[in-house]
Amino acid sequence: MSGTAPSPKRQKTAPPKKKQVPLAKDADIVLKKVRELKAAMAKPSYKKGPSVAAALVGGAPDAPLPKDQVMEVKNMSNPDVQEKMEKFALDIAKQVIEGRGFTFAVPSRAASNQHYDKSLDRIVLGNNQSSRNFVNVSQARKTAITTRVMQLIHTILGKGIHITKRDLFYTDVKLFVDQSESDGVLDDVATMAGCTRSNLNVVASDKGLVVGRVQFLEDGDSIDCTRMGVGGKAIPPYIDKITDITSDAEFILLVEKDAVYMRLAEDRFYHRYPCIIITAKGQPDVATRMFLTRLKAELGIPVMGLFDSDPYGLKIMSVYMQGSKNMSYDSANLTTSDIKWLGIRPSDLDRYDLPEQCRLDMTKEDIKTGELMLQEPFVKNNPLWVEELTTMMETKQKAEIQALSSFGFQYISTDYLPRKLREGDWV
Amino acid sequence: MSGTAPSPKRQKTAPPKKKQVPLAKDADIVLKKVRELKAAMAKPSYKKGPSVAAALVGGAPDAPLPKDQVMEVKNMSNPDVQEKMEKFALDIAKQVIEGRGFTFAVPSRAASNQHYDKSLDRIVLGNNQSSRNFVNVSQARKTAITTRVMQLIHTILGKGIHITKRDLFYTDVKLFVDQSESDGVLDDVATMAGCTRSNLNVVASDKGLVVGRVQFLEDGDSIDCTRMGVGGKAIPPYIDKITDITSDAEFILLVEKDAVYMRLAEDRFYHRYPCIIITAKGQPDVATRMFLTRLKAELGIPVMGLFDSDPYGLKIMSVYMQGSKNMSYDSANLTTSDIKWLGIRPSDLDRYDLPEQCRLDMTKEDIKTGELMLQEPFVKNNPLWVEELTTMMETKQKAEIQALSSFGFQYISTDYLPRKLREGDWV
Repeated sequence: MSGTAPSPKRQKTAPPKKKQVPLAKDADIVLKKVRELKAAMAKPSYKKGPSVAAALVGGAPDAPLPKDQVMEVKNMSNPDVQEKMEKFALDIAKQVIEGRGFTFAVPSRAASNQHYDKSLDRIVLGNNQSSRNFVNVSQARKTAITTRVMQLIHTILGKGIHITKRDLFYTDVKLFVDQSESDGVLDDVATMAGCTRSNLNVVASDKGLVVGRVQFLEDGDSIDCTRMGVGGKAIPPYIDKITDITSDAEFILLVEKDAVYMRLAEDRFYHRYPCIIITAKGQPDVATRMFLTRLKAELGIPVMGLFDSDPYGLKIMSVYMQGSKNMSYDSANLTTSDIKWLGIRPSDLDRYDLPEQCRLDMTKEDIKTGELMLQEPFVKNNPLWVEELTTMMETKQKAEIQALSSFGFQYISTDYLPRKLREGDWV
Repeated sequence: MSGTAPSPKRQKTAPPKKKQVPLAKDADIVLKKVRELKAAMAKPSYKKGPSVAAALVGGAPDAPLPKDQVMEVKNMSNPDVQEKMEKFALDIAKQVIEGRGFTFAVPSRAASNQHYDKSLDRIVLGNNQSSRNFVNVSQARKTAITTRVMQLIHTILGKGIHITKRDLFYTDVKLFVDQSESDGVLDDVATMAGCTRSNLNVVASDKGLVVGRVQFLEDGDSIDCTRMGVGGKAIPPYIDKITDITSDAEFILLVEKDAVYMRLAEDRFYHRYPCIIITAKGQPDVATRMFLTRLKAELGIPVMGLFDSDPYGLKIMSVYMQGSKNMSYDSANLTTSDIKWLGIRPSDLDRYDLPEQCRLDMTKEDIKTGELMLQEPFVKNNPLWVEELTTMMETKQKAEIQALSSFGFQYISTDYLPRKLREGDWV
């Protein structure tokens, strides 16, 4: 084989020396503010503000469910999930041998089974179950799909590989017919096994980026996100391949827009204000949400959100915070309930004297969405959000984060963000 | 400041030793095929097959333009572009002082000015120019926009930073009104200065990923794409920050779909078959196209394309190969004319016995697009493409790359691609 080994095109240059960039001059004020927030968050008396999760299931929290009535999935190891699949198969065989046909008990993910648990401050599933019976004509097909998905999951877990939902669909198009069928059953199988959907090694796609003060191992490769150039590192769809997370960051900056991420990455904002910068480029995918949740859990540092000042920006922020109802069985791994809204808030438009020409008129669609959001319990319950959203609705003006460019292209990293952080101006 | 310096949360683990993964057993056959192709490509007698560029301007090539009648931009250094902007300003001042108002001569990017140069095998712009006169009422606004954009470009070049098109728009919303106005003028300014649009330091956004056997410096950070875990490295929007590219890859695998990239990255396909794997996740952005063009130019290795077998996949491949008409003044930096179509080709459906249920019926829209493409000179000129597309239109079947999952999730990396490469089955 030696004759066929490719020869290097050119000698690799020696790795450049690590840059030593000092913190910003006002970093001590910023760090004091951020550390105060962190200390406050660590106290049992800390109030996060009204929960967004509570609102999702309709305002007032239900009476807390007894622990044995809560259906909540756990992170499980690959062999444990495999064993679960084998148990399902054995159980099917037993039922068939006993002449009972076969039936799956599937945890119900219906709205009526979603409860807000105040102590956990999350939506949890109750233990209602529905049955899926192969000998029932109306359920036979779905039962077959469920069984086939279990078999496929068992195969990929055995190989230790990950696949996409689309790959899964394509292994048996004839049976699944439509991808939504196999996608839906995936969530069923996860709740049945009591594991997260990611534990099934089936992923959607990745679109998140990370740059800044965090290091980790990814599938054994050592990744240092302070040395990822100006483009940063792609957040992998397989979060379980990330281990050994270390960081000297004091906060996480969660950015809605790609363009803002690019600005902060090029300016290497994280050198001057020790942070980790993350974006999912708009609507967040599961991998980015999980990555954020893990960083928050492992590092215990505050998360600051930077979103457009419009109803859509608010919606995206709410997905990071409360997640989607459909994935409520795994809310623990997907949501970061305590994100501080740093900017751009509707009140910023006047406070930062945003020029008239950078304020955009809200469209009819925007106004409609804004009005609907004002009715939503999850906004209603949060006085500061109501205040901000009311300002937006009264002025009928919205603004993108990039509108700050009117003060200079680097204004956001040299003035806006440092001032916000120094003043602790988050809600 | 020492009191405020963040303290590491945890000791960084020692970097793991470099994995030594041997090449695949059949790698010698594959490398022989690929090297033969590379050697053939290096010969002056090498025929790339009918040019797609020729077709873009309508079939037969024009008589070659004399060199002094070709308007082609060059990669220019930051100070050189700054100097150009200063010259424009001086020229304006001179005209105004002389009482002539002021006028810009702008290279025409109209279709009538696009010529196919056979020796270059690219579309080039002729030296037709239009004038933009500030004292002409109908041209005053556009002239003002042009001047303002020049001023802003001069500013960002002076700071040595990059901005997005959206940022540029937001610096003067009142003047630009619509982003398409400032975007369009950017191309004008680039052609006027004779530099690429990227030289203006204005970028769109990044969405490309790269993994595999390539190393480079990105803004001084040493990046090794064989050690980027399973997610890979984000291709930065600022390609000029990439320097010192080295590689021991023998070919580049250009992948349409994110999901296929993820499969190959997790399988670390590049260890067994020495290659670089790139995706732009669908329709390619400028940064990914530039990155591919640079890799091809600097490394001189063949590019293999892996696309869906449908009219849309063909369209995406054509963007990598021929680019967009609008950017024809910079076709040299954006197009990779010689991409080999590896798969999935319509003829693969039968040759690889793709199960019936994985073949999708073409929609009316697909059939219409396919019919239109068969009329396009750029397809017509290429007999092998006509053959493939005719097969598609006759069977009225399409297939996504993921359809290969029906043979097993890793079939693409263990069987399909190795066989294709061993047999030199590309067109």
